[in-house]
Amino acid sequence: MEPAFTQMTVLAPGLLGGSLAIGARQRGLVKRIHVWARRPEVREKCRQQYWCDAAFETPEEAVAGSDLVVICTPVETIHRLARRVAGSLREGAVVTDVGSTKGRLCRLIEAIMPPGRHFVGSHPMAGSEKSGMEFASGTLFETRTCFVTPVETTDPVSVAKIAAFWKALGMEIVTLPPEKHDEIVANISHLPHFTATILCNWLAHGNSDWKGWAGQGLRDTTRVASGSPDMWRAICEENRDEILRALEGFASEFSIMRKALEDRNYDKLFRLFESGKAYRDSMSVKPCKNTELVHG
Amino acid sequence: MEPAFTQMTVLAPGLLGGSLAIGARQRGLVKRIHVWARRPEVREKCRQQYWCDAAFETPEEAVAGSDLVVICTPVETIHRLARRVAGSLREGAVVTDVGSTKGRLCRLIEAIMPPGRHFVGSHPMAGSEKSGMEFASGTLFETRTCFVTPVETTDPVSVAKIAAFWKALGMEIVTLPPEKHDEIVANISHLPHFTATILCNWLAHGNSDWKGWAGQGLRDTTRVASGSPDMWRAICEENRDEILRALEGFASEFSIMRKALEDRNYDKLFRLFESGKAYRDSMSVKPCKNTELVHG
Repeated sequence: MEPAFTQMTVLAPGLLGGSLAIGARQRGLVKRIHVWARRPEVREKCRQQYWCDAAFETPEEAVAGSDLVVICTPVETIHRLARRVAGSLREGAVVTDVGSTKGRLCRLIEAIMPPGRHFVGSHPMAGSEKSGMEFASGTLFETRTCFVTPVETTDPVSVAKIAAFWKALGMEIVTLPPEKHDEIVANISHLPHFTATILCNWLAHGNSDWKGWAGQGLRDTTRVASGSPDMWRAICEENRDEILRALEGFASEFSIMRKALEDRNYDKLFRLFESGKAYRDSMSVKPCKNTELVHG
Repeated sequence: MEPAFTQMTVLAPGLLGGSLAIGARQRGLVKRIHVWARRPEVREKCRQQYWCDAAFETPEEAVAGSDLVVICTPVETIHRLARRVAGSLREGAVVTDVGSTKGRLCRLIEAIMPPGRHFVGSHPMAGSEKSGMEFASGTLFETRTCFVTPVETTDPVSVAKIAAFWKALGMEIVTLPPEKHDEIVANISHLPHFTATILCNWLAHGNSDWKGWAGQGLRDTTRVASGSPDMWRAICEENRDEILRALEGFASEFSIMRKALEDRNYDKLFRLFESGKAYRDSMSVKPCKNTELVHG
């Protein structure tokens, strides 16, 4: 299959934007890669990269002539940037993003796209507690899940092109409504971030030597707490209701386990450890590939 | 320094016992290594290992003539085994263990040691969610913390010998009272195991596809939930009160974070993410080596 896009613009290349530019160049997915970065020194650094054909001072200039535009800013600025570039998009251009929350954003941006220009929300489940272009890698997306989140009015051809693009970067595609996406990530991503942060904030009350004595278990359990507080603040603002529901669910399981311990119900605790283990053991097997979930 | 021990007996070699036998042999820490295993096929397997000089059918025979005995059974059987071998220990023998909880055990075993035989509790913070001798490795203990937990009446020379033994295996030694140990591990090990298990049990209510879509974050946050339910049941029985206190602490931080989200207090959430991150970022630096904490 011929690549669907000729010229890609990456707005705000950091860890994710840099990685997708490298991956797209290495795999020959696009002919030209243009970027916009707010800071002059980042633009200068981009110009020195083999994957960058041009770096522009304004996002409007950067999107001119591109048939694919990927917005890689944090969630809180995606909408603003989409609005800013909307009038400069060429006919047929497809815009996507890499934001961690989708519901509100996808509907807001759908409403501002001029005729003949299309927005398709994306959320590649790749990244790191590290951020910045210097950690970018062309293999960051391989084998990971990418959520593609069209709304009812999204152009189906654009959805197919965006899905094919992420798939060409090595990802497994899950297509589903943005609100369903937000429910799922509240549980599989935002909730674990909360529990890791809560663990750290609780342990910070203890003797500061404790953390040096911990085994790999505590290190792994809390790793994600090193993520950017700015990014997580924005995720909370965007996905408050779903995160609250996930926290409720965690709290109810927490109460069950605490009560079993209070009651010295060790048989019950054994069964809870057993079911937790069964779930975790099953996690190593990826259960599905490129699923379409219509209203799952 | 001359090795303090000549003949070591490992009772019930699994992941930990096998690893310490390999490590001790590779480093020449003892001249002879004797083992006892309950199952005949495990004894047979031991006899084929280069680190095993003899495998016995009973623990009493296995400890005969040894000046170091390491009990590597799960916590619930350590006391029973110590009582069983006590009468067969040679004059001057030092017994230790690798159990994850210490308070009750150390006091029970101290009370049954015959004159001239010494028990010193140990808890090497090494291991894996995997178990069994086939995963044993001579480097399992390197750079990890080993708690050594004497009670008031423990022979100081034996404490020094046990500490030197673990140190020779590459560990950093922390000497402290067994009850203080139990408080610390309730927080840095048992609490993270609970939160990982609770996360898994909550997520098991969701669509079974979810787990396949999760990023590395969820995998890391829940990894320890794959541990042995039998082992964790026993840890709960031994350390119930301290785990309940740690769960209380987690619950209070959980409420603070949930309330901030309910109240849309995103500035507060930012500060909570920031303090969690500061704690986690500081975890990569090991703050101290070979500390003596008397009543920390």
